[in-house]
Amino acid sequence: MQIGMMGLGRMGANMVRRLLQDGHECVVYDINPASVAALVADGATGSTSVEDFVMKLRKPACAWLMLPAAITGANVDRLAGLMTAGDIIIDGGNSYYHDDVDRAEQLFAKGIDYVDVGTSGGVWGLERGYCLMIGGPEAAVRHLDPIFATLAPGNSEAKEAAGESMRTAQLGYLHCGPSGSGHFVKMVHNGIEYGMMAAYAEGMNILKAANAGNKARDVDAETSPLQTPQYYKFDFDMAAVSEVWRHGSVISSWLLDLTADALQQDPELAAYSGRVSDSGEGRWTLKAAIDTGVPAPVLSSALFQRFNSQGDALYADKLLSAMRFAFGGHHEKPKEPPKTGA
Amino acid sequence: MQIGMMGLGRMGANMVRRLLQDGHECVVYDINPASVAALVADGATGSTSVEDFVMKLRKPACAWLMLPAAITGANVDRLAGLMTAGDIIIDGGNSYYHDDVDRAEQLFAKGIDYVDVGTSGGVWGLERGYCLMIGGPEAAVRHLDPIFATLAPGNSEAKEAAGESMRTAQLGYLHCGPSGSGHFVKMVHNGIEYGMMAAYAEGMNILKAANAGNKARDVDAETSPLQTPQYYKFDFDMAAVSEVWRHGSVISSWLLDLTADALQQDPELAAYSGRVSDSGEGRWTLKAAIDTGVPAPVLSSALFQRFNSQGDALYADKLLSAMRFAFGGHHEKPKEPPKTGA
Amino acid sequence: MQIGMMGLGRMGANMVRRLLQDGHECVVYDINPASVAALVADGATGSTSVEDFVMKLRKPACAWLMLPAAITGANVDRLAGLMTAGDIIIDGGNSYYHDDVDRAEQLFAKGIDYVDVGTSGGVWGLERGYCLMIGGPEAAVRHLDPIFATLAPGNSEAKEAAGESMRTAQLGYLHCGPSGSGHFVKMVHNGIEYGMMAAYAEGMNILKAANAGNKARDVDAETSPLQTPQYYKFDFDMAAVSEVWRHGSVISSWLLDLTADALQQDPELAAYSGRVSDSGEGRWTLKAAIDTGVPAPVLSSALFQRFNSQGDALYADKLLSAMRFAFGGHHEKPKEPPKTGA
Amino acid sequence: MQIGMMGLGRMGANMVRRLLQDGHECVVYDINPASVAALVADGATGSTSVEDFVMKLRKPACAWLMLPAAITGANVDRLAGLMTAGDIIIDGGNSYYHDDVDRAEQLFAKGIDYVDVGTSGGVWGLERGYCLMIGGPEAAVRHLDPIFATLAPGNSEAKEAAGESMRTAQLGYLHCGPSGSGHFVKMVHNGIEYGMMAAYAEGMNILKAANAGNKARDVDAETSPLQTPQYYKFDFDMAAVSEVWRHGSVISSWLLDLTADALQQDPELAAYSGRVSDSGEGRWTLKAAIDTGVPAPVLSSALFQRFNSQGDALYADKLLSAMRFAFGGHHEKPKEPPKTGA
Repeated sequence: MQIGMMGLGRMGANMVRRLLQDGHECVVYDINPASVAALVADGATGSTSVEDFVMKLRKPACAWLMLPAAITGANVDRLAGLMTAGDIIIDGGNSYYHDDVDRAEQLFAKGIDYVDVGTSGGVWGLERGYCLMIGGPEAAVRHLDPIFATLAPGNSEAKEAAGESMRTAQLGYLHCGPSGSGHFVKMVHNGIEYGMMAAYAEGMNILKAANAGNKARDVDAETSPLQTPQYYKFDFDMAAVSEVWRHGSVISSWLLDLTADALQQDPELAAYSGRVSDSGEGRWTLKAAIDTGVPAPVLSSALFQRFNSQGDALYADKLLSAMRFAFGGHHEKPKEPPKTGA
Repeated sequence: MQIGMMGLGRMGANMVRRLLQDGHECVVYDINPASVAALVADGATGSTSVEDFVMKLRKPACAWLMLPAAITGANVDRLAGLMTAGDIIIDGGNSYYHDDVDRAEQLFAKGIDYVDVGTSGGVWGLERGYCLMIGGPEAAVRHLDPIFATLAPGNSEAKEAAGESMRTAQLGYLHCGPSGSGHFVKMVHNGIEYGMMAAYAEGMNILKAANAGNKARDVDAETSPLQTPQYYKFDFDMAAVSEVWRHGSVISSWLLDLTADALQQDPELAAYSGRVSDSGEGRWTLKAAIDTGVPAPVLSSALFQRFNSQGDALYADKLLSAMRFAFGGHHEKPKEPPKTGA
Repeated sequence: MQIGMMGLGRMGANMVRRLLQDGHECVVYDINPASVAALVADGATGSTSVEDFVMKLRKPACAWLMLPAAITGANVDRLAGLMTAGDIIIDGGNSYYHDDVDRAEQLFAKGIDYVDVGTSGGVWGLERGYCLMIGGPEAAVRHLDPIFATLAPGNSEAKEAAGESMRTAQLGYLHCGPSGSGHFVKMVHNGIEYGMMAAYAEGMNILKAANAGNKARDVDAETSPLQTPQYYKFDFDMAAVSEVWRHGSVISSWLLDLTADALQQDPELAAYSGRVSDSGEGRWTLKAAIDTGVPAPVLSSALFQRFNSQGDALYADKLLSAMRFAFGGHHEKPKEPPKTGA
Repeated sequence: MQIGMMGLGRMGANMVRRLLQDGHECVVYDINPASVAALVADGATGSTSVEDFVMKLRKPACAWLMLPAAITGANVDRLAGLMTAGDIIIDGGNSYYHDDVDRAEQLFAKGIDYVDVGTSGGVWGLERGYCLMIGGPEAAVRHLDPIFATLAPGNSEAKEAAGESMRTAQLGYLHCGPSGSGHFVKMVHNGIEYGMMAAYAEGMNILKAANAGNKARDVDAETSPLQTPQYYKFDFDMAAVSEVWRHGSVISSWLLDLTADALQQDPELAAYSGRVSDSGEGRWTLKAAIDTGVPAPVLSSALFQRFNSQGDALYADKLLSAMRFAFGGHHEKPKEPPKTGA
């Protein structure tokens, strides 16, 4: 079927390619003409403006946005101004689901259907397929089924399933509920992702530190002594440990596959400084937990660890040192130059 | 090759079966004669006492213990008393790695090699193979290689690897280092497991609570109001969501496979009361983090959540209510009967 | 000076009494006529309706609201409809500071000044004075200075201070900044309060459990054994410990004073079931931390512990048990009847 | 009465001064003769060797050690070798309570009493008195009562108390139980201290960041946008806020007094780099919580925050960045130079 794609960054461009490969017709637009040209070369229909983009879409027009969250709203409005009742706007980016709920309500008044699609798969999606978490009105979602079926990974081992939800879930896409539900599920997915990543990272860090008993240690009142150095004399091969866990252990996962690969390339991870970004979904997940009174100590710890890595505990840490000096006369130990991890 | 297995519970018995199926000769012992008889029927050589067990092992005798941690020490001592220099004792249970370090040192004096093997795979190991994390002296570990190769999952896609460690890691077993290192790596594996499990559980709990805006809510000074109920009106199909994440998402994993299966059987999980046990490794992982000064907020949160589920926050919670009454005159709200989660 | 007080609950009524005792003139209103009558008996001027209330206030009318957050907004609107330019509305309740920012902007258009006052002191404020955290326009705040000075504790040891802020801070009230800043500071105050309370509660719980080595313990695969029972044979006198800490220790505080008093009345805290409410400020504090990227692991842990006590981890805990059964065949241990803490 | 003090650092020397001022006779020893001389000038009896020190103590000899934990054990042994049955050794340092339990058992065999005293009060103790948490045999503790009474703060408002425990607790010293119990209670005291300090520090950090809406913010895919900048436009006077909380608020405490003082000297805390040491007790508290199955999320978060400040999350953080690159192609943002907190 025909679909329009607006926003041809890494994600958008790869999704178009996956759609073209499966025989769909793609009208594409990006503010960068080179991005458009690249996909035209691959068989897409290019467009030179938002107006041109919408004009090239047959009715009901289906326009998929794959844009940064910050500019999605303005572009939804712009598209909506050019579209007519019965058309469908799909937001496949990382929007806050509150915005979906609000936008869907506004567009409903104009007869335009709004579908929010949480998209997971990253740079691997072109080859591996994208996991799609979909929110919006039933009819619009059903209309887009061929697109979803192509973008999703598919599953040669899918079993007979009782209902439509379970059938498509096995293929890698799911209509989760009304508007906003797709991005809600994707948001929680990312919250879980933060937690899992942190679980691996903390565990690997403990392994890395298991040679503490072999190292010289400052002996001063500001350094807690290692009481039993005899139990910390292990020098682990980080790449091999992460590799062995991939085979038969309880913690095997796709993230572990990637971790093992990264550690095989460089067990010291020297290319990284350890500043870990967060892109919003982890924050929103936590806000949802707070609103609904759900304990989320693991997900919050994972998020705060990233904030820490971004340097944002500094004032708190200074205050702790100031208090220690005030009540105990403890002089702050100088910060060491960043450890190499070696 | 020949191997002795002492302790024929779920794990030990299945490991014997996997070894027999691959042509190894297994001498087995358990205090329960019926457990011995069952494996004799499958082709193992039975024994009627620890003495008989050791006597049936050819030199160098290799005896693998698969016992609860609490009785492993006494049985290692007993075996050692019957063995001679050059023999090998393997502890495949969930021992604390400190005990390994201490035991290996004692047995070294007698010329007996001690090998600690952290074993992951649970009830699936017979079919799927066990992930083996091995600590101990080089020669003994090499001697046991055929046993490890059989127990491990193997890997038809294993690649050419630079060294022996990476070669066996791809097959699912790894010589991690000196005595204790196998159980150390297994301990951290379980710590990570707790963290991953909690990440999924918290996320699914947030999804479950996403219909809070559809529910009546107490209106009193002791209940924090839901400020934006319009954003919490989702009734998610927990089984379908966990299923879709298995296909192409960043959080796909073996634990997620099992979770999806459990939720498909009963999305309300009515068979469970929510008391989550912990078996020691999570605690030890945290102690290692504390000793070596490694931040482990996610792993500790996961452990403490289990303690909470075991009812052990009670006195702390009472004290919080007592303080609230003392400074603010807040009367404690009565505890509700446990929610059904529905 | 003259001030109107609307909302004569525990807090509002006591504040009126403190103001009357210091010679101020108080016009009071509450939907409950008995509450009005009680304060009229103490010397206040009663009113029978919001209209009557506003009419009895001399210009510029100063009306202080001491109402539950949920109904504050509607009453601010109602008052504003009856007031004229130059009048002042003070919200001394526990409103979300976002609402202050929004309300102040709306009222500014009408020329009415809006002042938000975070008020701490609980049931002890009448006698001990209230700590006042104030946000709003400079002139309005200065106009109300005599009221603030009376409500605050005062301080016979206040020192010469460089500026007005430090002068009043020593007396127990502070103009923190523009509209919303008073409730912002109060919100963070409560966030800190949660953290401090939890620190004491966790510590006391550890003391309480220090006799674990004297107790029988289940011996089964689902119970982690106590490795060193010889170090857990202490039966602490909780009341005496909390009392001794009040004298010369680093952790002496007003909360500890109250805690010691509660434990002296009943060290088992039998009157409490351990369901700990939260009233919103802790949640908002955490949202502010999330928005601004500030790590707040302690404040979040304290909040989530309250959610736990409210029973809201249940679905997550069930899922953990379901996973444990799925990979390891672990059968859930039955939940014990709530422990008495004894 | 006569008492010997071994170890004349800041704590030991001040304790001797407090004892001398109250008329006690103090024999003092330190490896640094200048430290001995300084106290001799204040009226103490000096000694030139451990032998000389013990010889100058009348029977039953009472020797109080105030030494770093790392060298306490060796000195206890040395003293014990010079003492006779009926003598008393007091450890007032920050020893691990496990060591007390073990030492007391060894000394009991020789008839020497061992008393462990957790001592809180820091640099303020000389003037303010020390909070003493005491473990050991009843008779020895009673014998030392005059010493404890002098060192403790005392309390002019102490009330009639039912028992001896509550009587002395009001004065600032408490016999907590058998050997080890004094240091156990002190250990938990420090655990609580970490939690309280972190609660203040996190809260103050949130206040500090409340001007985020006034600041320029990177706009890129690796920076989570601030969704509602209009609510983050507060520039708080940190010194004034901490001061106002001291008067009538729920969070007033001695730590807050010190914090307010530090912030008044420099609200930017420029003298500190934010490397926060920990001296062992926080770690031990957590181990006790783990052993006894007590949830301690707040105390652990406070400890791990210190580990973070010491740079020990680095490898974990690098691994997180490596994973993000692996699945999403996210390039790590460069680390900024440390923020000034301004």
